[in-house]
Amino acid sequence: MPKILFLQGANMEFLGIREPEKYGKTTADELDQMVRDYAAAKGFEVEIYYTNVEGHAIDKLFAAHRQDYDGVVMNPGGMCYAGYALRDCIRGIKVPVIEVHMTNHYDRGIHSISAQACKGVFMGVGIQTYMRAFDALLEMFKAK
Amino acid sequence: MPKILFLQGANMEFLGIREPEKYGKTTADELDQMVRDYAAAKGFEVEIYYTNVEGHAIDKLFAAHRQDYDGVVMNPGGMCYAGYALRDCIRGIKVPVIEVHMTNHYDRGIHSISAQACKGVFMGVGIQTYMRAFDALLEMFKAK
Amino acid sequence: MPKILFLQGANMEFLGIREPEKYGKTTADELDQMVRDYAAAKGFEVEIYYTNVEGHAIDKLFAAHRQDYDGVVMNPGGMCYAGYALRDCIRGIKVPVIEVHMTNHYDRGIHSISAQACKGVFMGVGIQTYMRAFDALLEMFKAK
Amino acid sequence: MPKILFLQGANMEFLGIREPEKYGKTTADELDQMVRDYAAAKGFEVEIYYTNVEGHAIDKLFAAHRQDYDGVVMNPGGMCYAGYALRDCIRGIKVPVIEVHMTNHYDRGIHSISAQACKGVFMGVGIQTYMRAFDALLEMFKAK
Amino acid sequence: MPKILFLQGANMEFLGIREPEKYGKTTADELDQMVRDYAAAKGFEVEIYYTNVEGHAIDKLFAAHRQDYDGVVMNPGGMCYAGYALRDCIRGIKVPVIEVHMTNHYDRGIHSISAQACKGVFMGVGIQTYMRAFDALLEMFKAK
Amino acid sequence: MPKILFLQGANMEFLGIREPEKYGKTTADELDQMVRDYAAAKGFEVEIYYTNVEGHAIDKLFAAHRQDYDGVVMNPGGMCYAGYALRDCIRGIKVPVIEVHMTNHYDRGIHSISAQACKGVFMGVGIQTYMRAFDALLEMFKAK
Amino acid sequence: MPKILFLQGANMEFLGIREPEKYGKTTADELDQMVRDYAAAKGFEVEIYYTNVEGHAIDKLFAAHRQDYDGVVMNPGGMCYAGYALRDCIRGIKVPVIEVHMTNHYDRGIHSISAQACKGVFMGVGIQTYMRAFDALLEMFKAK
Amino acid sequence: MPKILFLQGANMEFLGIREPEKYGKTTADELDQMVRDYAAAKGFEVEIYYTNVEGHAIDKLFAAHRQDYDGVVMNPGGMCYAGYALRDCIRGIKVPVIEVHMTNHYDRGIHSISAQACKGVFMGVGIQTYMRAFDALLEMFKAK
Amino acid sequence: MPKILFLQGANMEFLGIREPEKYGKTTADELDQMVRDYAAAKGFEVEIYYTNVEGHAIDKLFAAHRQDYDGVVMNPGGMCYAGYALRDCIRGIKVPVIEVHMTNHYDRGIHSISAQACKGVFMGVGIQTYMRAFDALLEMFKAK
Amino acid sequence: MPKILFLQGANMEFLGIREPEKYGKTTADELDQMVRDYAAAKGFEVEIYYTNVEGHAIDKLFAAHRQDYDGVVMNPGGMCYAGYALRDCIRGIKVPVIEVHMTNHYDRGIHSISAQACKGVFMGVGIQTYMRAFDALLEMFKAK
Amino acid sequence: MPKILFLQGANMEFLGIREPEKYGKTTADELDQMVRDYAAAKGFEVEIYYTNVEGHAIDKLFAAHRQDYDGVVMNPGGMCYAGYALRDCIRGIKVPVIEVHMTNHYDRGIHSISAQACKGVFMGVGIQTYMRAFDALLEMFKAK
Amino acid sequence: MPKILFLQGANMEFLGIREPEKYGKTTADELDQMVRDYAAAKGFEVEIYYTNVEGHAIDKLFAAHRQDYDGVVMNPGGMCYAGYALRDCIRGIKVPVIEVHMTNHYDRGIHSISAQACKGVFMGVGIQTYMRAFDALLEMFKAK
Repeated sequence: MPKILFLQGANMEFLGIREPEKYGKTTADELDQMVRDYAAAKGFEVEIYYTNVEGHAIDKLFAAHRQDYDGVVMNPGGMCYAGYALRDCIRGIKVPVIEVHMTNHYDRGIHSISAQACKGVFMGVGIQTYMRAFDALLEMFKAK
Repeated sequence: MPKILFLQGANMEFLGIREPEKYGKTTADELDQMVRDYAAAKGFEVEIYYTNVEGHAIDKLFAAHRQDYDGVVMNPGGMCYAGYALRDCIRGIKVPVIEVHMTNHYDRGIHSISAQACKGVFMGVGIQTYMRAFDALLEMFKAK
Repeated sequence: MPKILFLQGANMEFLGIREPEKYGKTTADELDQMVRDYAAAKGFEVEIYYTNVEGHAIDKLFAAHRQDYDGVVMNPGGMCYAGYALRDCIRGIKVPVIEVHMTNHYDRGIHSISAQACKGVFMGVGIQTYMRAFDALLEMFKAK
Repeated sequence: MPKILFLQGANMEFLGIREPEKYGKTTADELDQMVRDYAAAKGFEVEIYYTNVEGHAIDKLFAAHRQDYDGVVMNPGGMCYAGYALRDCIRGIKVPVIEVHMTNHYDRGIHSISAQACKGVFMGVGIQTYMRAFDALLEMFKAK
Repeated sequence: MPKILFLQGANMEFLGIREPEKYGKTTADELDQMVRDYAAAKGFEVEIYYTNVEGHAIDKLFAAHRQDYDGVVMNPGGMCYAGYALRDCIRGIKVPVIEVHMTNHYDRGIHSISAQACKGVFMGVGIQTYMRAFDALLEMFKAK
Repeated sequence: MPKILFLQGANMEFLGIREPEKYGKTTADELDQMVRDYAAAKGFEVEIYYTNVEGHAIDKLFAAHRQDYDGVVMNPGGMCYAGYALRDCIRGIKVPVIEVHMTNHYDRGIHSISAQACKGVFMGVGIQTYMRAFDALLEMFKAK
Repeated sequence: MPKILFLQGANMEFLGIREPEKYGKTTADELDQMVRDYAAAKGFEVEIYYTNVEGHAIDKLFAAHRQDYDGVVMNPGGMCYAGYALRDCIRGIKVPVIEVHMTNHYDRGIHSISAQACKGVFMGVGIQTYMRAFDALLEMFKAK
Repeated sequence: MPKILFLQGANMEFLGIREPEKYGKTTADELDQMVRDYAAAKGFEVEIYYTNVEGHAIDKLFAAHRQDYDGVVMNPGGMCYAGYALRDCIRGIKVPVIEVHMTNHYDRGIHSISAQACKGVFMGVGIQTYMRAFDALLEMFKAK
Repeated sequence: MPKILFLQGANMEFLGIREPEKYGKTTADELDQMVRDYAAAKGFEVEIYYTNVEGHAIDKLFAAHRQDYDGVVMNPGGMCYAGYALRDCIRGIKVPVIEVHMTNHYDRGIHSISAQACKGVFMGVGIQTYMRAFDALLEMFKAK
Repeated sequence: MPKILFLQGANMEFLGIREPEKYGKTTADELDQMVRDYAAAKGFEVEIYYTNVEGHAIDKLFAAHRQDYDGVVMNPGGMCYAGYALRDCIRGIKVPVIEVHMTNHYDRGIHSISAQACKGVFMGVGIQTYMRAFDALLEMFKAK
Repeated sequence: MPKILFLQGANMEFLGIREPEKYGKTTADELDQMVRDYAAAKGFEVEIYYTNVEGHAIDKLFAAHRQDYDGVVMNPGGMCYAGYALRDCIRGIKVPVIEVHMTNHYDRGIHSISAQACKGVFMGVGIQTYMRAFDALLEMFKAK
Repeated sequence: MPKILFLQGANMEFLGIREPEKYGKTTADELDQMVRDYAAAKGFEVEIYYTNVEGHAIDKLFAAHRQDYDGVVMNPGGMCYAGYALRDCIRGIKVPVIEVHMTNHYDRGIHSISAQACKGVFMGVGIQTYMRAFDALLEMFKAK
């Protein structure tokens, strides 16, 4: 059964509370439950980790590498703007990462640095964007 | 049954032939068959349209608007770099568009103009990126 | 009786439908009728041409040059952003062109490339902006 | 009878003398007479005001607002390049302003700051550009 | 006998008419005859194609690839400024392209995007620039 | 008793009238009364001066220097954008200046040139921002 | 009694030691005592928190939001330069934040990212800048 | 006897008082006397004019044009940074202007806009820079 | 015996694992042993500290300052790109820091912010770059 | 018989040795022989000159002007990047210069300054690029 | 008797020949004679040195420093654009340098790097600009 | 015994004389003696070469390549700013170069072009920086 790390970066714990007109009303807790349900339905193991500290995200990604995770779904949140260290870390690990943003960064004029090192980048379709990223990882595992 | 337009922009007809080390070996014909199969399996109607002329892509999108299409999956290909007119067109139609790129534009330093007006942007996981975009549209239809 | 080409560029056919809060509710058909009525009232011949393809706009302008048109009123629409070829074409023909935009580009932070080669640029006063451009051409003909 | 302020900014008093190959040979006095004649013909009241001091142009615009002018035709001349205070003033008054330039700024690589706050911007057709702007204001009054 | 496509882009049909002080007085028809004569003299087959539509230039280049042309001499004209799609197309075909400009772009401050993907770039020596490009292709064929 | 100059720059006379949703409804007259009351309560002498002309603001600041004012509270209004001469003037006088803006310039993407030469810059808390600047000056006088 | 969080960011613990010619000789400990005395005198509750880790500052601000703090006085110190995540956090919480810098950033050519999301920004008058920010918060509480 | 206008712009009246370590200790009054003495010695008529208002400098230059002055020695002071209107004025008058700065702008990273329209620009050798500019004008008169 | 802090920043713990073709195969553990051996051979005390969190690096540097360390050899790794807070910290402590990079940043187009505040910067000669930095510190101690 | 100067700039003497995968294996000596053979075959006189010093290239070009050379084929090599003085020299002499680069500068992101002043610029087809430039000069001589 | 070095940089030897419409018809030889005559008349010793090689200009300036020259009048010609080494050299010598350009660089959009290190910069009044620079040096010597 | 070229670029001959507060008081002669002593002590052969002419530095580096030098320690001095030709030369030779600067370029805002092609870059620790570079080369020779 594939193991996926679900990594939520800066400000993601405030999902559903912070600017709901932009990010929707689903809270972090509700999203976590949706992810766990999806894991159960699709047959993968998931670890959920939230942090506001970029260095801790890096620690976690190195741990995922050492523990032979199969993939990472990551929303770096506020870390994406200047996430050079995060980017270099992702470049250095063997685990494929898919970066997710619930809103369309192109429309908002935001540029993610960490996205440069990811396998894929999915954005703009709200909460379901996460599920599409899990699908993509599972499809990649199948292809191997 | 939802109707989706599958729009392939400049240079996409050369898929599988042009720079296969970057875009893979699946040809445009093979992709079209995969899309038709996926439509059959998932229960949606699909029209496939290829063009190298940005103005014709705009014509087609206006037609999709007039014919009440439910969504568009579009890879603008070479039109994305300076696709201002395409972007304004997408902003003006009521049909949601998901832009797809098979490779990670962040990694390659490419910036898409047309993506600014799209609902979602999916990139980087190769041929299956298209399927994830169809999934996202279908999920959006369900939510309505 | 002077002959004027009325050239509408990318996305202009969707006038009145696309973002009406920005461009007003007058449709392309209604505008065309207004222009024809104005031609009848002011005594000039008008040909109306819509296209979403920049190359076809260039074809039309060369034709206008060959057919000794006296002037062109043109709203390049979405072609204005990267309309370098259109600009060079206008520079090369002997027919004076007045570029029209219904909204104020200065206010919206838009820069038109094609405007560099035009005789005049009128913008911001909605549908009547077109009529003011026809007036300006007619006044220029009188001055000759 | 509508009241229109005709405001001429920095260096406009030297019209016809300063760089005539660019701005034509009509002097400021001759232009003023043409404007007064046009006002008589079209039925509007006009006040003519020349100043080389941006602050005085602002004073005049605030006065026009307080005295319920219906519109302003303004050529900011040399004030347009860095006319931030002028722009903010125009944004704050209720009187619509149409900015006029006798030459095509797009062609000359000039960017007007004050134009950002105006209702319309007309340029490039020489002395008659002023008349087209008066026409546009009169048309706007009619539409109300 | 080698087969060469001679591709003329936006505004090239107006050669000799458009800005002759810049581009000389040789018309498109005269140039075509010169090219046909040169082909006869040097022993190569040439197809001549003019278009103002970037997408059609791409169509033609893909056709040249499919029909095993040996080389392309191309003056993209007005397509060069924003010719990203054209550039990507050239990168994807196996036929070598030499881009030609009759004037020196360095001197005029113009930057060609399509030139990035070409084998060679020749510019500045007027009508004969085309002949030098044909020579270069022929020399390349000999070297193989 | 300390003497403070209260200097209001371009467009400030229209406070409460110009864009009240941005700057609030307190008019210039009401603000002046609040400032005079504050001066009475806190024990300082205040001169109030409004001007739309940057050169006159400079004249006034030189006068304040010559008359040994203890400090200046200044809202340059529209002069801040290109106020290089104002900045150099402030650099040259011995009277400390605190620049005030009622809104947060960082949020609005505005950059003040004159602020470079001021002792302090206070912004964003509406009408009371002025009072905080008077407090800061009084505190500075005490410290001497 | 209103509750205010006093948040000191990267390098602020070294106040009085680091570059005293720029920041003065008051140490962090002395400042804390001044703040506590001011709170006692003005009647507000204050929590003091120092951190060099941006993520921890975010944690603290979310905690302040959850614990219904009335306001925050924050000097982000070295976090201001690239504090995008901090900025997004402040945008998402309901507690108003006033950013403080002891020196004039305009004079030093520094640009704060976090300031974009704050209610107010006060800078340049040394240690007392903090007190002016507390005053502004208290005044805001009164106005409610 | 040639007539020269000596025009001193924004902040020049404070010469000798404002930042003497940069501009020296000679006051404006002393400089004026030196200029009058130099005029007497060299045989030219001089009018001295100081203003902090750019528009008034323009008024004065137009007056000099109308009164057939032979030349202008001008230090625009703080007007040089954004002096577009001043520049356009100088371009439009027939009187040659030499711009003077007492310090080396290249060394200080300052760029003068008004200098673009002047005949000559002299800078960096302190108070005597003015005298060198008068010499240059006199030499130019001789050459005619 | 001099005391040197050896500080390794973001991603440095993955030395020898992350992109070995760029950074070589020496692991972090092996490097630590080399450093300890070098300390024994050259006669200095060394403390080794790894962190992925910029704030913790700052904490450690302040501690080194308080504990009177004689010098720091630091490879900020991924912290160098946006390490403004780190830079300000180094500027504020009295302990000299030498920044080390194993590869040539000039060749790779990378710019380190933290390097601005360091005493020296050594890069490009692989693992031995660290030893050269220790040498430089020891030489500096000798010179005192 | 026409006289042509063949000028090779900085680093060109290392042709065939320096980065042969980029510039091919033909050495400078072999190229010189090819050029001499071509001159014999085509009937022109050639002087070959190599230098790494930009000033000496300028000396040589002035000499060519004084000695009435008919043309110059020049590869400035490393002088092209900042060759402002070289450019100004070429602008000042009457001898036409064709600049040659063996590789495509557009593809490599290099911009030549000296090319701005040349008659023509040929690049990208390897060693034969030189021969095409000689052809172009000879053709120009014929046309006179 | 003061000793002045007269240093002429890249392309200056071609004065009167190169672009005479820009630089006038006075040749380098004629200028040298004028300078020698001026030295005789004003009582200073002058050494004249021309070079197209920046390094030789530096050599000469170091020599002037070692030989206790009192001043330098220098026209760097084409060396000014990228003359960083020349600038650093001038910063390091004790001899004051006045940079001269015969045309107005502000008008031509040229920026001199070497001017940053000079005492004064004089430009725009043709051949006599040199004499004004000699005057300025002599005045400086007198002031000492 | 390894052979090392010690290359000193523009302005380096003035070491100890030019701006000693920046570069220290050690003269070029003293440094040369230190280098020769170090060579004797460490057992390597050294050739010392000073030049202010970039082209001569290139000549010397090509010579070093031809004479099989083992390494180069180079301080390009003023050549580093625009040393594109020098950079390309270093890229083309097989001898490893270590670039040295006595001061920290990061702190001074200087960017070296030539450093892009060097093996290593050492800076900031004064005169001893040279010795550390020799050490690095010797260590590299040992590793082979």
